[in-house]
Amino acid sequence: MSNIIKIAIIGLGQVGNYLYRELNLQRRNIEIKTAKKIKIIAISAKNKTKKRKYHINKKIFYKDPIKIIKELKPDILFEVVGLSDGISKKVVETALKNKINVITPNKALIAKHGDYLAKLAEKNRVNLEFEASVAGGIPILRTIKEGLATNKISKVYGILNGTTNYILSEMENSNETFDKVLQKAQKLGYAEPGNPKLDLNGFDAFAKIRILSALSFNTKISKSKCIMEGIENIKLEDIKIANQLGLRVKLLGISEIINGQLFETVHPCLVSKKTYIGNVNGVMNAVITEGKPVGESVLQGEGAGPGPTSSSLLSDLLSILRGNTKYPFGISSNKRRSIKPLSNDKYTNSLYLRFEVKDKQGVLSSITNRLAKYKISVKRIIQTPDKKNKKATIVIITHKTTEINSRNCLSVFKKNKNILKFPVLIRLYN
Amino acid sequence: MSNIIKIAIIGLGQVGNYLYRELNLQRRNIEIKTAKKIKIIAISAKNKTKKRKYHINKKIFYKDPIKIIKELKPDILFEVVGLSDGISKKVVETALKNKINVITPNKALIAKHGDYLAKLAEKNRVNLEFEASVAGGIPILRTIKEGLATNKISKVYGILNGTTNYILSEMENSNETFDKVLQKAQKLGYAEPGNPKLDLNGFDAFAKIRILSALSFNTKISKSKCIMEGIENIKLEDIKIANQLGLRVKLLGISEIINGQLFETVHPCLVSKKTYIGNVNGVMNAVITEGKPVGESVLQGEGAGPGPTSSSLLSDLLSILRGNTKYPFGISSNKRRSIKPLSNDKYTNSLYLRFEVKDKQGVLSSITNRLAKYKISVKRIIQTPDKKNKKATIVIITHKTTEINSRNCLSVFKKNKNILKFPVLIRLYN
Repeated sequence: MSNIIKIAIIGLGQVGNYLYRELNLQRRNIEIKTAKKIKIIAISAKNKTKKRKYHINKKIFYKDPIKIIKELKPDILFEVVGLSDGISKKVVETALKNKINVITPNKALIAKHGDYLAKLAEKNRVNLEFEASVAGGIPILRTIKEGLATNKISKVYGILNGTTNYILSEMENSNETFDKVLQKAQKLGYAEPGNPKLDLNGFDAFAKIRILSALSFNTKISKSKCIMEGIENIKLEDIKIANQLGLRVKLLGISEIINGQLFETVHPCLVSKKTYIGNVNGVMNAVITEGKPVGESVLQGEGAGPGPTSSSLLSDLLSILRGNTKYPFGISSNKRRSIKPLSNDKYTNSLYLRFEVKDKQGVLSSITNRLAKYKISVKRIIQTPDKKNKKATIVIITHKTTEINSRNCLSVFKKNKNILKFPVLIRLYN
Repeated sequence: MSNIIKIAIIGLGQVGNYLYRELNLQRRNIEIKTAKKIKIIAISAKNKTKKRKYHINKKIFYKDPIKIIKELKPDILFEVVGLSDGISKKVVETALKNKINVITPNKALIAKHGDYLAKLAEKNRVNLEFEASVAGGIPILRTIKEGLATNKISKVYGILNGTTNYILSEMENSNETFDKVLQKAQKLGYAEPGNPKLDLNGFDAFAKIRILSALSFNTKISKSKCIMEGIENIKLEDIKIANQLGLRVKLLGISEIINGQLFETVHPCLVSKKTYIGNVNGVMNAVITEGKPVGESVLQGEGAGPGPTSSSLLSDLLSILRGNTKYPFGISSNKRRSIKPLSNDKYTNSLYLRFEVKDKQGVLSSITNRLAKYKISVKRIIQTPDKKNKKATIVIITHKTTEINSRNCLSVFKKNKNILKFPVLIRLYN
């Protein structure tokens, strides 16, 4: 790289547009820290004339990002389009092949094609950096790759999606339904106005867990089918009951090595209000690693929004400007091993079960008998009658049982006429 | 550096001895991550034959560390003696002058001579790394230097001493006095058996704050006289009263830019039990940074003990092995500016005041009159009589006032015969 570093930005949505401004604002600061001058030589997006928050220089706008790569040959390219395939993949792939360093916050792309792209980067001796793909402004990937480099990490988990954490916190605080709070989140810009699905169904958090696993355990990105549940089915009622029990609902991403096998999951958890993770509220993200010899480490920070994301994108930029070519996943691709996944069936938790039943004699005992048959022992039962509607709500907290056992046990209730809805199941965090 | 990296360890106390073992255990892992082989070629300590937890190879033991530097020319030297001057300074100085990379967890040395030593390292184009000097296993320095590199940090604060945090937590949990809990901490190996003073009086946390300031604000290490108070005067009684008020005593280190001036301090604070920092208990450390655009970031982890310290020492080693020569303080020494300190007198807080007084008429009003004279308004008063001993305890929570004002106001009570002890003062954290 010469002394003036040529930069291209592909994608000018909320993040790309903010990044464009931030790079211009920070030019002098970056020069002080790295003794390198940067210059944005090209930008590209679907729409040139769309109204954007920060003014862009249309003279350096190109319709075709591939042309930027091949003809203008930037030193560093930011991919901020955000697709798992399509133009995102093509841009990153082409850039790496042309020996251009790539920085991206695109978790969907890295979770799906990270192994392939990392190899490509290593082969071409350039950097592929993706700090911003996990937990916004929290430098968690760098911490695992560098700060905790020689630790043996056995578990990494946390709150990885700010939107869902905001929704759950706000439902508890304001006593409003999921739909109402989702609208609020969209107004505040936390949730995508068009399609919040990937946040709500756990997909976003799950992509992050895949990346965290690969870095923490020095493994290839797993492709196995895992338990992935979002918060779409969490009702205000469950949040209220949890509250009474001293619990709080959190969407957790969890990755763990159990008996040498990898277990990854994302699902809502009931956590004690007295725990650390039970007190990470609002748009905050938190990642907890357990390793030896370091013990438990916690990183917490704002997980979403262009500010935090841009902070991480710039930390990647500085890392490259300081002249370090690094393995994208901390170690050489051919040293990263594949790992066998743990069967989902073996996953073990205490369960929160909420049944809505007809207020008839014998219903409770039909439930408890069924649980007993599957050796699921009951820790607590709370029955609340609703005389007016001849209904009752039965909440059961069980002792620990496996996924397969609970699935087999509960399946029968689908056909039970006295049970008005298939029971709500929320796992308790151990 | 050739392919086999020669390493020397100076100091074989708890940390040095653990590090020695860890380096041997991690050899293969380090080779995988960096493609470099390491070899410990020399060790040195005051006492060769002292009983140590992990066996050392006496064949590579040298009485004189300077001889190791000059004759054996290691590539990397670990200084783990821990003095602010003396042999620690001499070893680091000599190593840097001889173009040897230095890694140290020595906060006293860096807080006192860090500017000079950083310059020396830069002049000789070697690394001086000290990640382990602040907050044990938490990679906070790397996070500030790299992860948050382009953020404008305005404040950094936290719980920086595991020993004192353990003592305060344990006093609350066990209802035991300071002296009893200190003994327990010493038995558990948290507090130095011989001289725990530097932990208890705030000196240790203060050295860390000096280092954090320099990194966060890109300034020279400040030499100004600051408010530094430890926990030696915290009584079980204060912890109990705080508890009733929903508060908890924490020893906080705080560094902040206020109107372009630097304010650094370490003192016990009363924090709400509902806050994050109020729930960091036991030997845990936590560091919170406030920056733009990233917002608030939190790092929490085990702050003491050879395991966490060694984790950070090895992260420094890997950083060097990966071939990055870096500015010790993130930017070039000649770009780090001096900064004017904010006068301690202007520091503003709400106060917790506990008076022990004779149970006589007019005592309370003499106190409140005095406060009123200095325009210190009272938020809350709790008076508890002790009829048997003809005493009373008066606890007052005030609204905010400046240091100078409270000092002037309270000084009079030194001479008041009705006031049995000079009042205990604990500042409330804002």
